[in-house]
Amino acid sequence: MYKPVDNRNAISIDEARKIIVDNIDSVKLTTEKIAATAANHRIIAEDVTAPHDFPTFRRSGYDGFAMLQSDLTNLPADLKVVGDIPAGADFDRPLVSGEAVRIMTGGYVPDGADIVVMLETTRMIDKDTVQITEIQKKDNITQIGDYFKKGDTLLAKDTEINPGGISLLSAFDVQEISVYKKPTIGIITTGSELLNPGEKIVNGKIFNSNGPMIRDLCKENGADVISYTQIKDDPAALKSAVNDLLGKCDVIITDGGVSVGDFDIIADLAKSSEKLLFNKLEMRPGSVTTAFIYNGTLFFGLSGNPGACFTGFYLYVEYALRLMQHQASRCIECTGTLNAEYTKTNMYDRILRGQYKFVGDHIEIGRVGGDASGNLNNLQRATCMFEIPRGKSITSKDSRLRTWLLPFK
Amino acid sequence: MYKPVDNRNAISIDEARKIIVDNIDSVKLTTEKIAATAANHRIIAEDVTAPHDFPTFRRSGYDGFAMLQSDLTNLPADLKVVGDIPAGADFDRPLVSGEAVRIMTGGYVPDGADIVVMLETTRMIDKDTVQITEIQKKDNITQIGDYFKKGDTLLAKDTEINPGGISLLSAFDVQEISVYKKPTIGIITTGSELLNPGEKIVNGKIFNSNGPMIRDLCKENGADVISYTQIKDDPAALKSAVNDLLGKCDVIITDGGVSVGDFDIIADLAKSSEKLLFNKLEMRPGSVTTAFIYNGTLFFGLSGNPGACFTGFYLYVEYALRLMQHQASRCIECTGTLNAEYTKTNMYDRILRGQYKFVGDHIEIGRVGGDASGNLNNLQRATCMFEIPRGKSITSKDSRLRTWLLPFK
Repeated sequence: MYKPVDNRNAISIDEARKIIVDNIDSVKLTTEKIAATAANHRIIAEDVTAPHDFPTFRRSGYDGFAMLQSDLTNLPADLKVVGDIPAGADFDRPLVSGEAVRIMTGGYVPDGADIVVMLETTRMIDKDTVQITEIQKKDNITQIGDYFKKGDTLLAKDTEINPGGISLLSAFDVQEISVYKKPTIGIITTGSELLNPGEKIVNGKIFNSNGPMIRDLCKENGADVISYTQIKDDPAALKSAVNDLLGKCDVIITDGGVSVGDFDIIADLAKSSEKLLFNKLEMRPGSVTTAFIYNGTLFFGLSGNPGACFTGFYLYVEYALRLMQHQASRCIECTGTLNAEYTKTNMYDRILRGQYKFVGDHIEIGRVGGDASGNLNNLQRATCMFEIPRGKSITSKDSRLRTWLLPFK
Repeated sequence: MYKPVDNRNAISIDEARKIIVDNIDSVKLTTEKIAATAANHRIIAEDVTAPHDFPTFRRSGYDGFAMLQSDLTNLPADLKVVGDIPAGADFDRPLVSGEAVRIMTGGYVPDGADIVVMLETTRMIDKDTVQITEIQKKDNITQIGDYFKKGDTLLAKDTEINPGGISLLSAFDVQEISVYKKPTIGIITTGSELLNPGEKIVNGKIFNSNGPMIRDLCKENGADVISYTQIKDDPAALKSAVNDLLGKCDVIITDGGVSVGDFDIIADLAKSSEKLLFNKLEMRPGSVTTAFIYNGTLFFGLSGNPGACFTGFYLYVEYALRLMQHQASRCIECTGTLNAEYTKTNMYDRILRGQYKFVGDHIEIGRVGGDASGNLNNLQRATCMFEIPRGKSITSKDSRLRTWLLPFK
């Protein structure tokens, strides 16, 4: 009436991640050129270098007067104001001894001038004469190329662009850049118990909550979800859904069908794959989380259990999606200090969904809501996950635990 | 030849933020109904409550057999297997004494049954008979309403939805929700020195780098940028650009024109506003960052200096955009430990752009690139900002400093 549980080789979280690292090159992302204006949070695929020195002209650091340092040997010095250089203006001739020009912050320092005296330390003694009384310590001029020389790397390959990078591209008028294509994802949620939105609730059936969650998790982590399918626990339907997607996406994520019952349709697919990465983890929840490569596509089989699906996504799928894009996981690993004793023990490492806060210079972590993995009540509220190490000891308050701060929370 | 510097009343970062808090109600966001599928990272404007108990039926926590506890008084107990309840299936009659049904994780527990015995602790002694030998500690049944009762709050007003919340809405088939509209932003960058993309570089002119940065900062912080304009330092042009935007956006951000020179066109606008919030801050860079309310619209005047613009955006604009949406800033404030001595001192608090990392359970912070505020070289790389307190003392290595971890970096 039921198949015996497969003999599966359980491995640790770190071993599973190492296997992902070792196999990530199976899923290489190609590159594309895009407009810099659309580049925020895309990943640079080729170094962007400075097309010219920056600044391109000698620039005043302050509002004040540009002049020659040699005119300031004997103070007070009175200088003839021969012009005015507002921001954006050029000046038509070199400055000579005895002359000063009014200049704005960022303004063009004319040839000949080698110092800008701050406005606040000057005074006009008549309408055309400025007097300097203080000894000047700095020239207040940013030289050509002070910030970047032509050919300097502005944004290195494999950098995720943020608005700071956008400002850099804009400053050099770099209008197009080469980036990695976004990973394309197909999501297949399996389960004969799953209703479609709008259907009537009946005994035994539930609405699909993991599928929409996975879809938004993929999107916010930089992937393009190109297909989303909900099927029954039926090997033929799975095969057909998978065949529809092969060659069209970089990653296929299935949800459900990875448990130990009669309908382990993902396990069967994994068995026929060219490379099983893992199908049993020494962790709870989600010990049956599965990953394999099938027809050149990276598959993740997440548990249908909400808590396990959530945990499996952040620990393995997010990790892989970022690796594919030459990035580290955005789940920032750190050490949290537990705010209350935790008494449950397990032979596997237990990953709890929690919240964190900064208290002084420490990161305090604590549980949020129930830890039943079927319970949806803390997926919204969890801002971190942390690890209760396997073993028979109770985990005491103030234990320092491996913690992952979750992104976009 | 130039106007004297205005007498401006400098206030601290915290005082400025307090003023923003006190005036944020001037900019109330209205609400709109949107599809739950489009709700990730939107802010709930009305409590979402459970339309029914959850689970809606008694649910099995494991693969196994459902039966009556009263049949397990004397062990071993042999029970007749009268059926099979895969995921998603109903069962047509109550179970009675002596009977068991095979059930999957998440399956419907039939009336009459009051325990699910895990598959691993059972054995089939013939094709129709299952034998239980172990004493059972738990019933492994999730009762109707165990996770949520009808009317329970699923997502409270003012919650930012994340994929966990999407899963919750999906589980209850909530297809539409009420959210705050995104703040609408108009950006006006001012500066006669600014070139447009594609223009030829000439002495005195630069490409606009702050405008594109502000645009992407607004977008990634949940705002809709509905207008982006670049104008010269010209009060009439500013007036016209502002008039075009009034009534069309919640916030107008200007960049440039806030320094102490001849062309303080933003200061003039601020002077004519109904409410000046601040126009001088005890901080560097960005001491001239200005905020005011003009014709019912919240204005921020950021410095044209890249470092000051960046700092001003995160400390005040991001702060206000999040407040308008009933949220705390995503710049997470914490205490960082400085990785090297900092010798510059200032009468104002200095905000440095830096990077952080978790070292043990501490947050180590350090400078990145140069701190010249005109230098663009660290805006991309900065992942945090930290405060060098005002005063005459050198800031020693290992100083514990007020730090903001920057979002989306």
